[in-house]
Amino acid sequence: MATLLVLYHQPADVKAFDAYYARTHIPIAKRLPGLRSYAINAGPVSSPGGPSPYHLIAELTFDSLPDIQAALGSAEGRAAVGDLANFAQAGVTIAMYESRKA
Amino acid sequence: MATLLVLYHQPADVKAFDAYYARTHIPIAKRLPGLRSYAINAGPVSSPGGPSPYHLIAELTFDSLPDIQAALGSAEGRAAVGDLANFAQAGVTIAMYESRKA
Repeated sequence: MATLLVLYHQPADVKAFDAYYARTHIPIAKRLPGLRSYAINAGPVSSPGGPSPYHLIAELTFDSLPDIQAALGSAEGRAAVGDLANFAQAGVTIAMYESRKA
Repeated sequence: MATLLVLYHQPADVKAFDAYYARTHIPIAKRLPGLRSYAINAGPVSSPGGPSPYHLIAELTFDSLPDIQAALGSAEGRAAVGDLANFAQAGVTIAMYESRKA
């Protein structure tokens, strides 16, 4: 399995961010070819020491890292990445990797 | 389900970090009460724009956020958090949250 982890920094306008993410970005991201699962935080993200720098964490899984790369390079992937500019102005950190049981 | 995400920044000595993590930290972290699954990256972590700031990403799942908080507050959790000082000097970002299907 491979993971595409998308960490969104705290937005200036949380309400606008959440509305845009739910109504516009999720439907776009769900079109990624090869997407196997797509989970997001259901409540606030916290840290042991206090508030988290992240407002929203999305975890998308695929069968392999090449599948993630192919998805991001597809028309649907370019649309999803391009859409970030419409709501993720506070910053977004993206990490992708093959994962295995520890 | 709830996720405890642990993002380790690039260490100065990758070989020493990897050896310590595999031989010492994983066995300590596996003792966390309520731990349901524990996955780490199997190869390098990458980013769309180039190298990732993260060397290792661990995802531990539990039944709920209170279960994570209880695990971290237990003797086993204090040992796992305390062990970070032995190998994660480059920095570690921890995020915890209930997760749901997007």
